[in-house]
Amino acid sequence: MATVGKVIKCQAAVAWEPNVPMVIEEIEVAPPQANEIRIKVIATGVCHTDLYHLFEGKNKEGFPAVLGHEGAGVFKPGENSQECRFCKCPKTNLCDQSWSSDRYAQMSDTTTRFSCRGQPILQFMGTSTFSEYTVLNQVAVAKIHDDAPLERVCLLGCGISTGYGAAINTAKVCPGSVCAVFGLGAVGLAAVMGCKNAGASRIIAVDINEQKFEKAKIFGATDFVNPKSHKKPISEVLAEMTNGGVDFSMECVGNGAVMRSALESCVKGWGVSVLVGWTDVQDFSARPIQLISGKTWKGSLFGGFKSKDSVPKLVLDYMAGRIMLDEFVTHTMSLDQVNDAVQLMKTGGCIRTIINLSK
Amino acid sequence: MATVGKVIKCQAAVAWEPNVPMVIEEIEVAPPQANEIRIKVIATGVCHTDLYHLFEGKNKEGFPAVLGHEGAGVFKPGENSQECRFCKCPKTNLCDQSWSSDRYAQMSDTTTRFSCRGQPILQFMGTSTFSEYTVLNQVAVAKIHDDAPLERVCLLGCGISTGYGAAINTAKVCPGSVCAVFGLGAVGLAAVMGCKNAGASRIIAVDINEQKFEKAKIFGATDFVNPKSHKKPISEVLAEMTNGGVDFSMECVGNGAVMRSALESCVKGWGVSVLVGWTDVQDFSARPIQLISGKTWKGSLFGGFKSKDSVPKLVLDYMAGRIMLDEFVTHTMSLDQVNDAVQLMKTGGCIRTIINLSK
Ligand SMILES: NC(=O)c1ccc[n+]([C@@H]2O[C@H](COP(=O)([O-])OP(=O)(O)OC[C@H]3O[C@@H](n4cnc5c(N)ncnc54)[C@H](O)[C@@H]3O)[C@@H](O)[C@H]2O)c1
Ligand SMILES: NC(=O)c1ccc[n+]([C@@H]2O[C@H](COP(=O)([O-])OP(=O)(O)OC[C@H]3O[C@@H](n4cnc5c(N)ncnc54)[C@H](O)[C@@H]3O)[C@@H](O)[C@H]2O)c1
Ligand SMILES: [Zn+2]
Ligand SMILES: [Zn+2]
Ligand SMILES: [Zn+2]
Ligand SMILES: [Zn+2]
Repeated sequence: MATVGKVIKCQAAVAWEPNVPMVIEEIEVAPPQANEIRIKVIATGVCHTDLYHLFEGKNKEGFPAVLGHEGAGVFKPGENSQECRFCKCPKTNLCDQSWSSDRYAQMSDTTTRFSCRGQPILQFMGTSTFSEYTVLNQVAVAKIHDDAPLERVCLLGCGISTGYGAAINTAKVCPGSVCAVFGLGAVGLAAVMGCKNAGASRIIAVDINEQKFEKAKIFGATDFVNPKSHKKPISEVLAEMTNGGVDFSMECVGNGAVMRSALESCVKGWGVSVLVGWTDVQDFSARPIQLISGKTWKGSLFGGFKSKDSVPKLVLDYMAGRIMLDEFVTHTMSLDQVNDAVQLMKTGGCIRTIINLSK
Repeated sequence: MATVGKVIKCQAAVAWEPNVPMVIEEIEVAPPQANEIRIKVIATGVCHTDLYHLFEGKNKEGFPAVLGHEGAGVFKPGENSQECRFCKCPKTNLCDQSWSSDRYAQMSDTTTRFSCRGQPILQFMGTSTFSEYTVLNQVAVAKIHDDAPLERVCLLGCGISTGYGAAINTAKVCPGSVCAVFGLGAVGLAAVMGCKNAGASRIIAVDINEQKFEKAKIFGATDFVNPKSHKKPISEVLAEMTNGGVDFSMECVGNGAVMRSALESCVKGWGVSVLVGWTDVQDFSARPIQLISGKTWKGSLFGGFKSKDSVPKLVLDYMAGRIMLDEFVTHTMSLDQVNDAVQLMKTGGCIRTIINLSK
């Protein structure tokens, strides 16, 4: 490519500071260094974690930054670096190179490849897909099938893989089981899809926004509960519906109180609850008896999938009709509408908006 | 027996109210009803849960009561009643008949077989072994080998089975793993023994009372940490000792802050922490990232053993030298010294005191 080794100028949405809209700017994207790959981003989803970073969290990863982390694009493959002890272990997907000390790694040397108006701009979650070009550590890149529709499979870069994997890999939902999914955004709906594909006999969809129930049905939910319609704690409502509680529950909201409800909704003896939703401003908590009575509390990052191996397989699963993706997409927008997309998620008016950067 | 169908008068330690010493009284023990067994108690351990009920807890099971639940005695076998759905499931030991609605079942009809000075006296944890005679729902009774020394195997009625099973059944400690046990009472020491028997390569014993370390070594501990000797959080100390955290941790104290430390001390990706210690006056809590990073939080009641099947086998394990019991016994006393035994545990001066009621 003519741009090899050179700085590329392109459009990106820059989040200059928390709690204010992003600004579309021309940024400079430096060439990739060792173990890095420069990518032309074709499509990206908007995930609640982008929203969280902008409005709700501790802003641990800093500002100014280019957000976005659910992307698909084109690149020239590079070299793979060595695997760490976590990569070698089948029990986890937490690569030490991509995620350590409770945060995502930036580039291979912890700097950024972005600048704007002479100022360095941070990368987000090691990705930054709200930009026409980005540079990634190769650990964050998966090579997928050439014919995959990028404006769909970008969703496998975060939310859908996360929810789906939380059900099948982390909870390990088993055939005939009774499940509850709290929160019916893309993550929660993908968890519903995972429960369904794993053979659950009953999938209870829980959300305070009843507009989500119709979609949940498409993905396989069988029962629908709005906590706001009940005076009792939701765990009691579910216990009554299920003879003592569900076998598996998944929290896909990111709220400490909902995490507690999800655990309390499990049946004693063998119930498993999985944290998928994210917050770093609240603890989760419960009474010891909840675990002593034989329940298990787990959590899941990216659904427990090792991304380099699993994303290409999930793409094939989609192309073969084994998992749904189209049904998650409610809106498609251009990069300069990215603030609208964020706003839409904030008000609960979408499942996933795809930002199309291909023009 | 001449006493069949008749009330037996005998000595028992009656806890008339919380926070005051028990009183040795003559009590009346009614004959067993359907599905119940009257037992002549020969020996009983004193467990922290007795202490907890008397001094620390919410007194959910009420007063006046006869405490004690780690007992062995003699009886004439009765009939087994039907198994519940929990008994039929290999994943749990929580029989619905012996433990439901977050508390132990009393007799088969929820009344008590004890009275004293014309007043009904409650039973505790469905057992009440601080009495020369007691009546149990048959679900709480296990028939063991005739030659078993009762003043040792009584310990298998609670603490030792609990800690041992927490390691082998609940945590499922695997060969070569690195473990940490928080709290080195009989429960914690038994957890150390479980880790050792499961083939752990390293067992870190954590207690604020350094007098416990010598015993812990006998049961297989390899490293010893007193949290009071460190300025850093104990989870950081353990992370440094173990290249990022332990594979398995067990909380055998009953303290919300220690529960958090035990989880935080686990390695990301696959660490498993087990709650064994008991409190119902505190929540346990942590940051979501602790679970999202791939750790698992579990809990264990009676070490996950189904008591009717497992206690007889554990008795044989002891008789064949596969597990230790003698090493837990630091004191032997008579029933009228029961308050001294409780005091000794409160001050950390014992591991287990056996109350011998056989005279
Ligand atoms: N663990 C991971 O790897 C991972 C990956 C992606 C996203 N996440 C997190 O997953 C969560 C969901 O993401 P999303 O993109 O689906 O978000 P979303 O905003 O689209 O969906 C959240 C849903 O939760 C519902 N909700 C809010 N409060 C609720 C309550 N009290 N009870 C029940 N439902 C409630 C909302 O109505 C909404 O439907 C976020 O916290 C996000 O940060 C985690
Ligand atoms: N889950 C169950 O089925 C079950 C069964 C039996 C006992 N228990 C509970 O297990 C716990 C232990 O019982 P036990 O009989 O061994 O009690 P114990 O009093 O003999 O031992 C507790 C130990 O914890 C230590 N300790 C106290 N604070 C500590 C701290 N901050 N950090 C580290 N160590 C600390 C004490 O020094 C002591 O050595 C109790 O909470 C008891 O109620 C639970
Ligand atoms: Zn790695
Ligand atoms: Zn995301
Ligand atoms: Zn049962
Ligand atoms: Zn006990």
